[in-house]
Amino acid sequence: MEKSNKVALLVAAGDAVGAAVARKFATNGYKVCIARRDAEKSQALIDELTEQGCDIRAFSVDARKESQVQELFARVEAEVGPIEVSLYNGGANIKKPLLETTEKIFHRSWELACFAGFLVGREAARYMVPRGRGTMLFTGATSSLRGGAGYAAFSAAKMGLRGAVQAMARELGPLNIHVMHLIIDAGVDSAEIHRRLAVELGIDASKLPPDSMTKTASIADTYWYVHQQPRDAWTHEMDIRPAIEKW
Amino acid sequence: MEKSNKVALLVAAGDAVGAAVARKFATNGYKVCIARRDAEKSQALIDELTEQGCDIRAFSVDARKESQVQELFARVEAEVGPIEVSLYNGGANIKKPLLETTEKIFHRSWELACFAGFLVGREAARYMVPRGRGTMLFTGATSSLRGGAGYAAFSAAKMGLRGAVQAMARELGPLNIHVMHLIIDAGVDSAEIHRRLAVELGIDASKLPPDSMTKTASIADTYWYVHQQPRDAWTHEMDIRPAIEKW
Amino acid sequence: MEKSNKVALLVAAGDAVGAAVARKFATNGYKVCIARRDAEKSQALIDELTEQGCDIRAFSVDARKESQVQELFARVEAEVGPIEVSLYNGGANIKKPLLETTEKIFHRSWELACFAGFLVGREAARYMVPRGRGTMLFTGATSSLRGGAGYAAFSAAKMGLRGAVQAMARELGPLNIHVMHLIIDAGVDSAEIHRRLAVELGIDASKLPPDSMTKTASIADTYWYVHQQPRDAWTHEMDIRPAIEKW
Amino acid sequence: MEKSNKVALLVAAGDAVGAAVARKFATNGYKVCIARRDAEKSQALIDELTEQGCDIRAFSVDARKESQVQELFARVEAEVGPIEVSLYNGGANIKKPLLETTEKIFHRSWELACFAGFLVGREAARYMVPRGRGTMLFTGATSSLRGGAGYAAFSAAKMGLRGAVQAMARELGPLNIHVMHLIIDAGVDSAEIHRRLAVELGIDASKLPPDSMTKTASIADTYWYVHQQPRDAWTHEMDIRPAIEKW
Repeated sequence: MEKSNKVALLVAAGDAVGAAVARKFATNGYKVCIARRDAEKSQALIDELTEQGCDIRAFSVDARKESQVQELFARVEAEVGPIEVSLYNGGANIKKPLLETTEKIFHRSWELACFAGFLVGREAARYMVPRGRGTMLFTGATSSLRGGAGYAAFSAAKMGLRGAVQAMARELGPLNIHVMHLIIDAGVDSAEIHRRLAVELGIDASKLPPDSMTKTASIADTYWYVHQQPRDAWTHEMDIRPAIEKW
Repeated sequence: MEKSNKVALLVAAGDAVGAAVARKFATNGYKVCIARRDAEKSQALIDELTEQGCDIRAFSVDARKESQVQELFARVEAEVGPIEVSLYNGGANIKKPLLETTEKIFHRSWELACFAGFLVGREAARYMVPRGRGTMLFTGATSSLRGGAGYAAFSAAKMGLRGAVQAMARELGPLNIHVMHLIIDAGVDSAEIHRRLAVELGIDASKLPPDSMTKTASIADTYWYVHQQPRDAWTHEMDIRPAIEKW
Repeated sequence: MEKSNKVALLVAAGDAVGAAVARKFATNGYKVCIARRDAEKSQALIDELTEQGCDIRAFSVDARKESQVQELFARVEAEVGPIEVSLYNGGANIKKPLLETTEKIFHRSWELACFAGFLVGREAARYMVPRGRGTMLFTGATSSLRGGAGYAAFSAAKMGLRGAVQAMARELGPLNIHVMHLIIDAGVDSAEIHRRLAVELGIDASKLPPDSMTKTASIADTYWYVHQQPRDAWTHEMDIRPAIEKW
Repeated sequence: MEKSNKVALLVAAGDAVGAAVARKFATNGYKVCIARRDAEKSQALIDELTEQGCDIRAFSVDARKESQVQELFARVEAEVGPIEVSLYNGGANIKKPLLETTEKIFHRSWELACFAGFLVGREAARYMVPRGRGTMLFTGATSSLRGGAGYAAFSAAKMGLRGAVQAMARELGPLNIHVMHLIIDAGVDSAEIHRRLAVELGIDASKLPPDSMTKTASIADTYWYVHQQPRDAWTHEMDIRPAIEKW
């Protein structure tokens, strides 16, 4: 593994997509900083990757708090190195009939999927713009493109994030900052989704056709690829889904 | 004027679009209820329309407060009649470089353009769904469709509203509630815009080519038309702009 | 009925949408010219509307032939009057697996839905541009927006038409020509569709829920409305569907 | 270079994008077949790559002729091997005022950018579907997404191709054929564009800011990447543009 001094800061990086992106960038020589509500939850991943010779650590942060996001970026820049790549991966899919969509649900959905993403992007810009380089990645979903029945809260948040990300991409592109919004138009092949399929729909995920869901490693590879794009051929939005998915 | 017992509740209805929609519905026999931060600001309009024999009144509300929106709907239903049409017209266009887009700006933009719109739509649904009829109207802008450079806050809010409105439209359409999002892809020909053109850009609006901006009466006519659409031919999103506008 | 000297030329105007648009414009005082493969097929409609005092006639044309379209426009301008409104309504929905989509199917679909529409728009422009006024209407479908499985030929044609119409709208708008593309995202409530439902799917259309399909009169009303829009508030694309339609 | 028995058939592969894709696939072990109007024009490229130990050859074809496309596929399958990847890269950007867009221009634009692409995709499907594997690539442009003023012919053709490609992608995806449409939302850094910039706009391309145009090698890399995507994470449409490009 060729090591670099480059830092990837992955915010709201949990055990599924977040861990896969951490693995990808860490094993490709990046110093990886994971930031999530409870940093201890990433200990097993840190042990695994440290053993492989990777440079990886985790920070606890509530990404919905401006001051915490600012402190996170300041600390990573000071203690680890210049942030070359940021990822914001937060947002919890929720489906509710409109009349059961409480103020609290709507607000939390927005805070997590949209507001925190904005905070992360803006702080990343604060460090990347003066350096004239960097990549910002954001995770989107089907609800980033359309408001389906039952998704008032989630699609308001995800379409809101998409709006903020497009604005960042258009402002920062000419400053050599690559801003990219990845739309995962599929179920993610993760323990959490397997559990929900079983509980909510009585579906045994192990019996689905192979490659019915998008693997977290494939998502990580996609982010890695986009980060490698030369600046004469940048993609600002991209969607991925399994071969068998309807779209 | 043929009078009806039907009520149109126009929220965040100010002196430009809001007043024009009030005029249109009031002079077509609707009982019009204006709701805005300070009801007194609509007094001249109320006097004007009352003199013409219209039934119109105004309520003070902060539409970003769930309890106030709920009280507003309850009061209008109890004191005025069944709400046939609701409009949410809030949201203040704001352009700022990303690094100057404070948490406060981002939050306020969302509260006004997205969250309050959701609250209004949900409360309207509460009354309309049991009756199996009604029309909900929402005002969008260019930033409802794309995040332009400098519009992180506004496009996050407006694209967020669009997401919520689409979700409502898909859920409520089969219940015979017509939900419609009107995208005004233009400057609105209003005193406020004239003032901003003069102050911010040094442009004298009276010297622009005729019909360079969309008249508030034209917007009101569009809303009226959509409300009249028979349920075999509903439009859920529509955009209007002047003939000379680039798009 | 207030009569005018204004002419509406409706090309590929058959017994469903075409006849409804003819009725709408004729009973609103327009001189209506129907153009279709076999003019005689509109004789009953002409008799009906003439009896009501309308001015209406029909022309035989193959709209896929440039010379015939040019002769049609020249003749209508010379014999009837200045064309104020044009409609192109051609295109036959076809669904085929890709491997069964012959060259002939693909070519015919394009000729009818796209090429003829371009010819009509361009000839309309030839007369409208020098006068600095006019409205051009084009009929679209779900396949104007997306290529569904089995619709390679039809969506290539309809998305192609949409492209040509957008180009016309952007070029001609500033010249005061209103170009509009109406997307009927639904089945049209016509004898032809009833027949196909019965034959192809064994569905008795008379037993569907009311307002499951879009009425031809509603489509005509939509076109009429758009034609009335003032030039400070033009719509260039609009979609309509029944309340119960999925979208 | 690891050699494989896999064949990439690149249709309408000229000296810019086509040659770059040929280089990429050939140097990665693919047997590359170039098909273009005049195969001799690729001789220098063939010499260059053959010298490097690549397997590459060229065929003359008019891709707008169904029989020629069928013969091409049959011959490549028989003489070279199973086609794993197809590319259709045809289409010549043209800008004309509507009234100068002759029938001939409109028809040629469609034949080259849309119809030939359909023929290539359909023939590719004929061989790939029975094998249950393959990748089809198609080159799009800004005009694939919107009809700009002056682009009636080109956008009708490119939006038409997009429709056909989407239909193919939706039908063939579940059959394990990856169909992808790449939108190059930029000028391509090629001799032809440099010449046109000089002649039409008096611009010396060598004096533009670096990376103002998308390099053909970057386009080839993008196609290569998409072809490598695992089937749990396929992209069906992707756009690329330089960092400094407005979008």
